[in-house]
Amino acid sequence: MANEDTIAAISTAMAPSGIGIIRISGPSALEIADRVFINPKGKKLAEQKAYTVHYGHVVEEGECLDEVLAVVMRAPHSYTGEDTVELDCHGGVLATKKVLEAVLRNGARTAEPGEFSKRAFLNGRMDLSQAEAVMKVISAKNEYALKSSVRQLSGSVSEKIRTIRKNLLHETARIEAALDDPEHMSLEGYESQFRSVISDQRDQIDRLLKHADSGILMQEGLKTVIIGKPNAGKSSLLNLLSGEDKAIVTDIAGTTRDILEEQINIRGVTLRILDTAGIRNSDDIIEQIGVKKAVEQVQDADLILCVFDSSVPLDENDRKILNLIRGKKAIILLNKSDLDSVVSENEIRELTESPVITFSTRNKAGLDLLESTIEKMFFHGQLQFNDEVCITSIRHKQALEEADRQLGYVLKSVDDGMPEDFWSIDLMGACDALGKITGESAGEDLVNEIFSSFCMGK
Amino acid sequence: MANEDTIAAISTAMAPSGIGIIRISGPSALEIADRVFINPKGKKLAEQKAYTVHYGHVVEEGECLDEVLAVVMRAPHSYTGEDTVELDCHGGVLATKKVLEAVLRNGARTAEPGEFSKRAFLNGRMDLSQAEAVMKVISAKNEYALKSSVRQLSGSVSEKIRTIRKNLLHETARIEAALDDPEHMSLEGYESQFRSVISDQRDQIDRLLKHADSGILMQEGLKTVIIGKPNAGKSSLLNLLSGEDKAIVTDIAGTTRDILEEQINIRGVTLRILDTAGIRNSDDIIEQIGVKKAVEQVQDADLILCVFDSSVPLDENDRKILNLIRGKKAIILLNKSDLDSVVSENEIRELTESPVITFSTRNKAGLDLLESTIEKMFFHGQLQFNDEVCITSIRHKQALEEADRQLGYVLKSVDDGMPEDFWSIDLMGACDALGKITGESAGEDLVNEIFSSFCMGK
Repeated sequence: MANEDTIAAISTAMAPSGIGIIRISGPSALEIADRVFINPKGKKLAEQKAYTVHYGHVVEEGECLDEVLAVVMRAPHSYTGEDTVELDCHGGVLATKKVLEAVLRNGARTAEPGEFSKRAFLNGRMDLSQAEAVMKVISAKNEYALKSSVRQLSGSVSEKIRTIRKNLLHETARIEAALDDPEHMSLEGYESQFRSVISDQRDQIDRLLKHADSGILMQEGLKTVIIGKPNAGKSSLLNLLSGEDKAIVTDIAGTTRDILEEQINIRGVTLRILDTAGIRNSDDIIEQIGVKKAVEQVQDADLILCVFDSSVPLDENDRKILNLIRGKKAIILLNKSDLDSVVSENEIRELTESPVITFSTRNKAGLDLLESTIEKMFFHGQLQFNDEVCITSIRHKQALEEADRQLGYVLKSVDDGMPEDFWSIDLMGACDALGKITGESAGEDLVNEIFSSFCMGK
Repeated sequence: MANEDTIAAISTAMAPSGIGIIRISGPSALEIADRVFINPKGKKLAEQKAYTVHYGHVVEEGECLDEVLAVVMRAPHSYTGEDTVELDCHGGVLATKKVLEAVLRNGARTAEPGEFSKRAFLNGRMDLSQAEAVMKVISAKNEYALKSSVRQLSGSVSEKIRTIRKNLLHETARIEAALDDPEHMSLEGYESQFRSVISDQRDQIDRLLKHADSGILMQEGLKTVIIGKPNAGKSSLLNLLSGEDKAIVTDIAGTTRDILEEQINIRGVTLRILDTAGIRNSDDIIEQIGVKKAVEQVQDADLILCVFDSSVPLDENDRKILNLIRGKKAIILLNKSDLDSVVSENEIRELTESPVITFSTRNKAGLDLLESTIEKMFFHGQLQFNDEVCITSIRHKQALEEADRQLGYVLKSVDDGMPEDFWSIDLMGACDALGKITGESAGEDLVNEIFSSFCMGK
């Protein structure tokens, strides 16, 4: 699996800052770095011990490009598992780019996005689930996402999956052995023990799946849509929610600028309020309710916040909105409770099953209740930061569902009295599905797809 | 000068990326890092050698925040000259922030912008001119700026200034000594030698000043204004100039987003095309020529590009534009040479002293000539990347001018036959002015002002 070529990229964000890092990894990393790195005492990086730092300059054709610190790491004890040099520059965009260019001209090639992590995976430094966790740590939007990603990075998910898979492989091996050598191994009386082991593994998978949706929502954030008639208070609600320092993510330069959604953290849950521009401009959409776009937004949403104006009587539009959200996760906010009210909670409750909260964007009445309602609606209090392994990836969830399905077939084969070799086929299918999570049975395409979504320099 | 407290900040740019760094500096840096850093073998950073790297996790109250590498540096061999730990995290915005918060809760305080560099200066790790160069490397807009800043960082400017200042101090000391102890030291016959030394130092200062304006322009970029009547081709010119990969700086996320200017690199020279929105919208401004804003823009510009439409006859507005740019650095582009021309170069040349170029934004005729004209107009070929020390800072230029003025007074005092103690007063004034460049005679206010313009984490 060893790579012949040496790759390099800028691993810090490309904006003026205190430190910028060029990472070089591969069999010639030290040699290439030595071609551009000049230490005042003439030290060569290739002769330095692993995990040491050296002061010097990056010089190409007699011209000094920057003053740097060079960090030397050696295979297999580096992020990639290869020889690695990190050049810490003064974090100028142009300076960092110049140093990278010098490194590239001296024998390295530009790393593809995720290629350092891909090498780490291929060199056995981490499994697929851990590599995915790296990218999740980088893009974590809230504390829950960060904590579960750090835990996944440390191997918690892998360990759990690997244990289940090992148990299944053990039973498969036993069946295969007995089928191969019936004279010495018998499956006599094995059925009940087998059923118990398989059921047990399946229960563990089901337990992981049970909280997976919540985990994924916590990780990704809830796709949230605010709907309501013109002047009901949709924009005021958005402003209220995003105020008070709740916009933890949005206040950081560069994180969300290019994303057409507003991100708001409420009690550790991220609401991704989609296409805010569209929503702010949605007045005419609601007027012509049934219009495709509004329906789509609502169909696709994890959470719908319906803002009603309690100071004017309900009309046909309100009833259309209530029809639209039937059967979905929605919360009705009976807004403008600070004004004289002509619509009561009970009047709405007769028309909907969704929770109804008397609200005022002006004096914040109902805000606490809204927050606790969202929390309860999605997380039932189980998603505390306990030590349970939690699945937070759609890919992992799908693999677990596949394993679950295969184990269902296995148990059915047993019930139906099918011969043992039938058991083992589906058992192998389950092992394959689980192996996709850790990477033990992931094909090249899947691996490439996963790493291509990584950021540059990771 | 030693600081009692330990400071910390995120030193990489705040956007999702491969690596994020928290820098901790001060007497308790190692101790504070050890409170949050857990190495799997139980190693304590405080017991590690300088310039070594250690793997571990940042853990607070039992909760793992990220997997990190910790780089240990010890006073005085670090950027700040203090004990320093750098925690290299997976570059997530939230993760990096969480690690910083943990460090702050464990005894560090948030570093002010530029505070690491200020400590480096106060601890004698670099002088003021070098510290300023750090920020210039970070914000360098073109290769010239980068190279001159890297050279300044290495001490080239400081060395030159320090030599001149030392020579002046030497003469001052001699005069003072002779005045204090006339019995043993005589100034008999000293005048001509003194005059020669002072003239020589002044010549060196003048040589530095001679290219300072070019140096500053190269560093900061030319404030450029494009003017012309509606439909003359101003926007097409801007598009032509910013196309073809010339917008080296603008294509990098985060560098210019918040600045109301377009930056274009031409042959290593940065044109800062100011307030493009305004210029694009300037049609009516030119219509009512003489309007305050247009005049101001032109007054303030380092370079004016006047776009004329050669396919229609000159009119009153064109003549007003030509009046407006009289005596300024302007280039006339006789645009639309691809169409039938009714205005000749000669016709314009009679009305202006500025260079006139027949141009076509459509087929790029005249583009090379425009580029070489700009180059010649500002840099006369002297500003090659030779080993000459070049002044690229307005602050340094002003200090040199002050020193030059003071040395002028000194020479005048000599000419006027004033007593020697008069010489030494102005001589000290010149030394003071030069000392402001290196920081040897910079007051606290000046130092604070300089570092407060630095970026966070540097």
